Amino acid sequence: MKNRPRIIIVGGGFGGLWAARAMAGKHVDVTLIDRKNHHVFQPLLYQVATAVLSPGEIASPIRRILHNAKNIEVILGEAVGFDKDKQTVRLENGAEIPFDYLIIAAGARHSYFGNDDWERAAPGLKTIEDAVEMRRRILLAFELAEREAYLTGTHEPLNFVVVGGGPTGVELAGAIADIARQALAKDFKAIDTTKAKVLLFEGSDRVLGTFAKDLSESAKKQLEDIGVEVRLNSFVTEIESGRVKVGEDWIECDVVLWATGVAASPLGKQLGAETDKAGRVFVQPDLTIPDYKNIFVIGDMASLKQSNGEPVPGVSPAAMQMGSATAANILSDLKGAARTDFRYVDKGTMATIGRSKAIADIQGWHFSGFIAWMMWLFLHVVFLIGFRNRVYVLLEWFWAYLTRERSARLITGNAEELRDAVMFIEGESAAAIRDRPGGKKVSSAGKI
Amino acid sequence: MKNRPRIIIVGGGFGGLWAARAMAGKHVDVTLIDRKNHHVFQPLLYQVATAVLSPGEIASPIRRILHNAKNIEVILGEAVGFDKDKQTVRLENGAEIPFDYLIIAAGARHSYFGNDDWERAAPGLKTIEDAVEMRRRILLAFELAEREAYLTGTHEPLNFVVVGGGPTGVELAGAIADIARQALAKDFKAIDTTKAKVLLFEGSDRVLGTFAKDLSESAKKQLEDIGVEVRLNSFVTEIESGRVKVGEDWIECDVVLWATGVAASPLGKQLGAETDKAGRVFVQPDLTIPDYKNIFVIGDMASLKQSNGEPVPGVSPAAMQMGSATAANILSDLKGAARTDFRYVDKGTMATIGRSKAIADIQGWHFSGFIAWMMWLFLHVVFLIGFRNRVYVLLEWFWAYLTRERSARLITGNAEELRDAVMFIEGESAAAIRDRPGGKKVSSAGKI
Repeated sequence: MKNRPRIIIVGGGFGGLWAARAMAGKHVDVTLIDRKNHHVFQPLLYQVATAVLSPGEIASPIRRILHNAKNIEVILGEAVGFDKDKQTVRLENGAEIPFDYLIIAAGARHSYFGNDDWERAAPGLKTIEDAVEMRRRILLAFELAEREAYLTGTHEPLNFVVVGGGPTGVELAGAIADIARQALAKDFKAIDTTKAKVLLFEGSDRVLGTFAKDLSESAKKQLEDIGVEVRLNSFVTEIESGRVKVGEDWIECDVVLWATGVAASPLGKQLGAETDKAGRVFVQPDLTIPDYKNIFVIGDMASLKQSNGEPVPGVSPAAMQMGSATAANILSDLKGAARTDFRYVDKGTMATIGRSKAIADIQGWHFSGFIAWMMWLFLHVVFLIGFRNRVYVLLEWFWAYLTRERSARLITGNAEELRDAVMFIEGESAAAIRDRPGGKKVSSAGKI
Repeated sequence: MKNRPRIIIVGGGFGGLWAARAMAGKHVDVTLIDRKNHHVFQPLLYQVATAVLSPGEIASPIRRILHNAKNIEVILGEAVGFDKDKQTVRLENGAEIPFDYLIIAAGARHSYFGNDDWERAAPGLKTIEDAVEMRRRILLAFELAEREAYLTGTHEPLNFVVVGGGPTGVELAGAIADIARQALAKDFKAIDTTKAKVLLFEGSDRVLGTFAKDLSESAKKQLEDIGVEVRLNSFVTEIESGRVKVGEDWIECDVVLWATGVAASPLGKQLGAETDKAGRVFVQPDLTIPDYKNIFVIGDMASLKQSNGEPVPGVSPAAMQMGSATAANILSDLKGAARTDFRYVDKGTMATIGRSKAIADIQGWHFSGFIAWMMWLFLHVVFLIGFRNRVYVLLEWFWAYLTRERSARLITGNAEELRDAVMFIEGESAAAIRDRPGGKKVSSAGKI
């Protein structure tokens, strides 16, 4: 049992996890390092952000997912540097862990194109914490409008702005429109939540630009059907708390959500390898970096051209395939067999827009509307990791579909935050409420 | 429809919610004000703290619970003061809301007996945020021990300390022992989680002191059966990060949880009424404060003696009964009927200890072990508010019971927190790991 090669995997996302799984039970010692204790099923993060699912339903402890693999250890920690020649990974506490093979799969975050100060006003969506923060802001906006209407008899119009018309932006905009029109409508009594505006800004001339043109157009129409205002060729040039600047116009809004821009993990640069503008590492056809056949970079951190000249897209199936391919190549090495170049297999792409609304491109076949949505639903349930989560999510969705309820509608955070958030609502004298005809609430007089 | 009396309820816990429900559809305008948007099923908070249930499973948006009642408005806000004679409630933003009747049901928090600086090191359990923080600390302790064992080949023993042998303390201690012995045991490879110590410190001479003596003894035995060390007559005299002082001895520990002390909401004092040491307002038999027949204080904020001389206990059934009784008295007023004095009906009390372990006292009949646990389970599921939550929690429990899995095991929080948390683990040179025989992990050499 001597000389078992030590494999270090940095990151427990789709890439890292699929690499680990493919080495379970093999004659190697694997250590997976992640800053979080849980794997997140990122394609459904937007459902946590919009209060459909709870965090626990799309996240699983990494060590539970891998607990049957006796040769895989999971460590909570942050990799901060590498020594390629000494073959070690340095953790944030200074510890150095030796490796024979290294797989870096630390993913990407959203990029603010150099305007990092926008993040406070316009959070992005990459982690469970991001999603809970979005959920807090969205729900709080409705609560504060209701309160304002109750106290003053009227309220400012509710505006939600989503920046970026890619999959995440489309999903978020559609889901907010869904909540406002369905789940929340009967619960709010002083305001009419169905009047909330959802604005989606996209810099290019169509949404979901990676899809075929007819699907983009269908997606735009489906968005508009559920009340989203889609503004194409619209660049957001400035963001402040409570407003965004589009071209030359400032637009007031309650919540801004950021859904564009990709910045690969800074670990790519730490590695000292060549990277593209987004920080992705240029990798060899076997996903290694030049001169180091034992160091792999995979998933959203890797930049690789397919044989047709197109880059491998930054989507979860690509990350999974890279993870499995890397594990296979390492195991080939150990058997003395030749490595295989990575080839991305595109089984189809889809994007969901809202309840019963989606688009899909399956090997050139285009679908939209209910059928595409059913396909999306089926695939996401099947792929959700872990039997338990799958059943629960299915139940949640079934429930949400039948009742149009949203179940995970918790605003969490401490009291001071609430206090900060509501401070801008002007106080009103008791007399003003008392003097309203019959002491009635706005609601009694009909929706505003 | 004129002259509908305006009822303000402060607090959406059991007291406030039951009062609101009893006035649904009646000829009154009710406004319920809470700092949070959700009602929490407090008796199950410890299950969130110990990763059995997710926050969304024991909390529901208040406005959803009450959405069918057209005469009830729910407002997110913090009541900070009252003008008893002008009959207004002041919110944190200065707004004043007029009332004809006021029901204050703002509950209680834990008290540190004047040592508020202990809270940082030893959080208590009253809100969802508290529960998530406890969960984070408990899970992080296991993660850090695993990492230490992986990096250094050994680790400090894991000690969990629970301060207070009341229902919350017993539930927390039992649940931590359960996780360590069952759910986590197979997931951690370098450490043996079953060796984790759980210490329960109680100042008096028995746990669950409000129960009959034989039940207290049974509870202690059941705790010891699942590995909890129960230390009676043990006063915690000082708490610092990483250690507690009991009598004269300092005891090292990874996590300290605070489960004793009650401090009623400071709103009782704001009211200018007489309060007891814990800040509870002395109320009249109809739950009003002296001289103000239209101001009620209920639930954990109220101090009232029963006819047998015993105080009404600070438990959720008492709060619910007070809520319903108050609503009934207000409705009686409106009909010109006489009010009824409040009488607490004790239908029985129970406390759970762990999987298949509990005690119950139903009108003098004493039960313990599996039967008591089944009764506890049944009652808590039945009382869980909202059909949906009930079904889900039942499924979760059924699943947890069958598989001994814990599903909600997420450590959330930002990267800096992790960095702070793990900084104390000493770094180790790569050589030390490399020199281990055969490069093996501790796990390969057997559990520590």
